[in-house]
Amino acid sequence: MSKIYIVGMGPGLIEHMTPMAKAALADCDIIVGYKVYIDLLREEFPDKDMRKSGMRSEIDRCKDTLALALEGHTVGIVSSGDSGVYGMAGLMYEVAGEKDVEVVVIPGIPAANTSASVLGAPLMHDYATISLSDLLTPLEAIYNRVDKAAAADFVICLYNPKSKGRPKYIEEARAIVLKYRNADTPVGIVRNAGRDNQSYDITTLEDMLSCEINMFSTVIIGNSQTYVKDGKMITPRGYQNKGIL
Amino acid sequence: MSKIYIVGMGPGLIEHMTPMAKAALADCDIIVGYKVYIDLLREEFPDKDMRKSGMRSEIDRCKDTLALALEGHTVGIVSSGDSGVYGMAGLMYEVAGEKDVEVVVIPGIPAANTSASVLGAPLMHDYATISLSDLLTPLEAIYNRVDKAAAADFVICLYNPKSKGRPKYIEEARAIVLKYRNADTPVGIVRNAGRDNQSYDITTLEDMLSCEINMFSTVIIGNSQTYVKDGKMITPRGYQNKGIL
Repeated sequence: MSKIYIVGMGPGLIEHMTPMAKAALADCDIIVGYKVYIDLLREEFPDKDMRKSGMRSEIDRCKDTLALALEGHTVGIVSSGDSGVYGMAGLMYEVAGEKDVEVVVIPGIPAANTSASVLGAPLMHDYATISLSDLLTPLEAIYNRVDKAAAADFVICLYNPKSKGRPKYIEEARAIVLKYRNADTPVGIVRNAGRDNQSYDITTLEDMLSCEINMFSTVIIGNSQTYVKDGKMITPRGYQNKGIL
Repeated sequence: MSKIYIVGMGPGLIEHMTPMAKAALADCDIIVGYKVYIDLLREEFPDKDMRKSGMRSEIDRCKDTLALALEGHTVGIVSSGDSGVYGMAGLMYEVAGEKDVEVVVIPGIPAANTSASVLGAPLMHDYATISLSDLLTPLEAIYNRVDKAAAADFVICLYNPKSKGRPKYIEEARAIVLKYRNADTPVGIVRNAGRDNQSYDITTLEDMLSCEINMFSTVIIGNSQTYVKDGKMITPRGYQNKGIL
């Protein structure tokens, strides 16, 4: 049976590429991915057939990959982060449908977790990840999730916090969280996590909108116990003061 | 300044160990960890000073590590998964306190994400991770999180779903989710994710309690859109039927 690997390479790509990911790619006849990923992989796999996928839609990329697999090739699609988190894995299963092809997901470190490591230890306890992109999800469902996550004192990790088409959703999300949390609640913003041009701010709900937030950012909002110490954002493992909720 | 690395090795340990993790461990004078991890690492680092930490409490392990660092050693603590998710990272920052030591967190693939890759693509969209351990967190806060996460249609990933001391919490969590979701909602249970003895079930809210769930399990409960196809559990990227919530 033909085989497709969906390979998450972690946000830093080569520096986060696991032996499992490397072995999967070594097993491929063809590797498909964005130009920047393919260029990085060229050093690891100098003789491999690699295809730069360009800026085609994700559905088209999955269809192209399926077509190659049905020709008999073992194909790998590489993506940054974890392909199972707002990534291509689910889509590839959907596109593959009833076809006679095996789809294998190779996990990678999600952007949320790399971002957390940059900030210190802000996740640590129960957390919720929410994408503010309403391309495929109704905005009211997104805001409802922000509201419920804030109400239940989850650490909140926002993906896709801002883009040109939706500059204000992050402001609304912040306003919702402020219904439940103090204005001095720590907030971490990591831009280009794991990349050469990585940068970050540790700020507060009060001040977060004065920091740069763009489509390459992950925003982590602390829970009621999160604090900042020596420039690190830390969420304790538990509630030492039991009964706080 | 002394340095402590908190290194997440992913659930599969060696097969998930990133180049970043390997480089950090190579930089250490001493590596501390459970026996099984140290034994696995011996092959990679045959000449390294490694200390098996035994079953001491996590606070004691952090104190021991700090003491070694303050003697001038660069010390690495290894853990499975991501040390920033229900792990040692936050505790190490807390124990290090005001001491003159740099603490660096190296991310790893969390158990939730490896478990997801085994099941197919069940996370994919907004998800919440919740630990059912009430050792450090009031039980009512935990159940409140399950309730809010279920109400907002998050995919829910349960860590520490069951142990001898708390055999019934998973039953209560299931009952809470059933207030909001259909009984045929897909549920994935992965035991020993990324280990040699890994196993899993894909079941439903209705039937999940008849599957083996233990302290080495991760339980992933789908959202309202999750479905099972050809033995894989898949959550679509978005809500094709907009306005569903």
